[in-house]
Amino acid sequence: MSAVKLEEFRERIRKELDTTVDFWLQHSHDPLHGGFFTCLGRDGEVYDELKYVWLQGRQVWMYCRLYRTMDRFHRPEILEAAKAGGAFLRRFTRVPGAGSGQWKCAFSLTRDGKAVKIQRTIFSECFYILAMDELSRVTGDKDMQLEAEQMMEQLISWVREDPAGLGRPQLPGDVPTNSMAVPMMLLCLVQQLTEGGGAEVVQKYTELASWCVQQILQHIQRSGTAILENVSVDGAELPGCQGRLQNPGHALEAGWFLLQVSAQQKDEALQRTAIDKFMELPYQNGWDKEHGGLFYFLDVDGHCPTQ
Amino acid sequence: MSAVKLEEFRERIRKELDTTVDFWLQHSHDPLHGGFFTCLGRDGEVYDELKYVWLQGRQVWMYCRLYRTMDRFHRPEILEAAKAGGAFLRRFTRVPGAGSGQWKCAFSLTRDGKAVKIQRTIFSECFYILAMDELSRVTGDKDMQLEAEQMMEQLISWVREDPAGLGRPQLPGDVPTNSMAVPMMLLCLVQQLTEGGGAEVVQKYTELASWCVQQILQHIQRSGTAILENVSVDGAELPGCQGRLQNPGHALEAGWFLLQVSAQQKDEALQRTAIDKFMELPYQNGWDKEHGGLFYFLDVDGHCPTQ
Repeated sequence: MSAVKLEEFRERIRKELDTTVDFWLQHSHDPLHGGFFTCLGRDGEVYDELKYVWLQGRQVWMYCRLYRTMDRFHRPEILEAAKAGGAFLRRFTRVPGAGSGQWKCAFSLTRDGKAVKIQRTIFSECFYILAMDELSRVTGDKDMQLEAEQMMEQLISWVREDPAGLGRPQLPGDVPTNSMAVPMMLLCLVQQLTEGGGAEVVQKYTELASWCVQQILQHIQRSGTAILENVSVDGAELPGCQGRLQNPGHALEAGWFLLQVSAQQKDEALQRTAIDKFMELPYQNGWDKEHGGLFYFLDVDGHCPTQ
Repeated sequence: MSAVKLEEFRERIRKELDTTVDFWLQHSHDPLHGGFFTCLGRDGEVYDELKYVWLQGRQVWMYCRLYRTMDRFHRPEILEAAKAGGAFLRRFTRVPGAGSGQWKCAFSLTRDGKAVKIQRTIFSECFYILAMDELSRVTGDKDMQLEAEQMMEQLISWVREDPAGLGRPQLPGDVPTNSMAVPMMLLCLVQQLTEGGGAEVVQKYTELASWCVQQILQHIQRSGTAILENVSVDGAELPGCQGRLQNPGHALEAGWFLLQVSAQQKDEALQRTAIDKFMELPYQNGWDKEHGGLFYFLDVDGHCPTQ
């Protein structure tokens, strides 16, 4: 790609980012309770007041990251909204979990912060950690950063030691699998928590990062021609719809995280794999040639995905 | 509609039914473990072996109902398949529930009957009851019929007394609502359990049937111009996406059950309501005029449903 073409894309992305940030600044803030409305029409109208924790966490993270790293977003109203969102999350999101002494994060909250639903997965917690860590980098709040780290320890224990605290009953037909979303999100969190950190914090998460990379690479299946979303814990293809599921968007996201690892570690083989298998392949397999856009879900053998 | 037109439809439906039953007889039976494969391609190929309990229960019910009520389906292979499906369900579906001494039904099972997933709702149990009651009518198995009734008692208690046994944590933002699927399915079960029964069994469920009808009628909203899927326990419209949700197929199904009640009770006002509000209205509001077919979900104000 030529330098001119790259600059064109950059300019286009810059404009889209400005438009997007303006939209959310204008329409999504809840001045009464803090936090953000996320069910917004194209005209900015709030059509539902439920507060989904993934989106609350992502918005706090996004505002702080923009504030911290880009001059044109280093604006007080962005910081204040992020703080109000962080305070809302911190006050209301954590609910007692199934495990003794463990906290879970709610999946969704009412406008005034009452828990509506708890999922029996790790993902609300992931977005909570992203928000708390990034916000603490802007505000210097050490307690908040410690809270992010404690939730991270909890999460690692659910994934690698004992999932009982997630609250799912242990069923004989529900065998453990390697679902790409899990190591992918853990790797994202490692990158968040270690960013700009000293040797100590990097060291702390080195083994986990390697484990995540290996778990992600197990999803390269069918002699390298497909990324499958769910594989066995030994890295083999699973039977049925679950085993044949492709999620091109997830594969691309995993590729992004692998590319970051490869840059940090100057690992050219991993860089090649990230680009070939987790970026070019999902575009080839996942692009809708008729209508454009990426398919959310595809069955690698062409059946209709149950999703 | 003319008698000729009606006879044409009847003939068309008769042919479709024969084709459909032939397809399922030929492709869905599991000779090894009993029960039915339900993930079948158009060519009959099994593309997933998971056994979903709703579909197992519905197929047992359907085979027995056809066998019991229609001469051309009173065939030994249909009865044998229903029995094998019933035995599979009875052996594997019930799993210990969250409430002390309570049984839940699994949502899905492996091919050989190991529980994969349990939903925290009542619907797997509904289809289990349908299957057990209808099968017991064909075989005369009194134990099986008792089991259907016991599960029904359990289910009524979850809906009308204490939902704790379903296993959902009680959350302050998750206020009780009247979701149409619940009284609709309960009414369907009452009609199943009382069909052809004496005064005693009809009497047993009279109050429940009236309660279900009242709960269903609460979903007529917006001055009679819409059937909304979720309302408050007082029958008022709920805020947000949940409150604006329409499910035209559910409304039609509810209309079918209301029509049966109105016929049994010779209640002409209810018959009129069933036809006007639960049949004509969902067709008017729910038909896709561009591509044909009924929408699964619609927002009554035209927003995009979160489903």
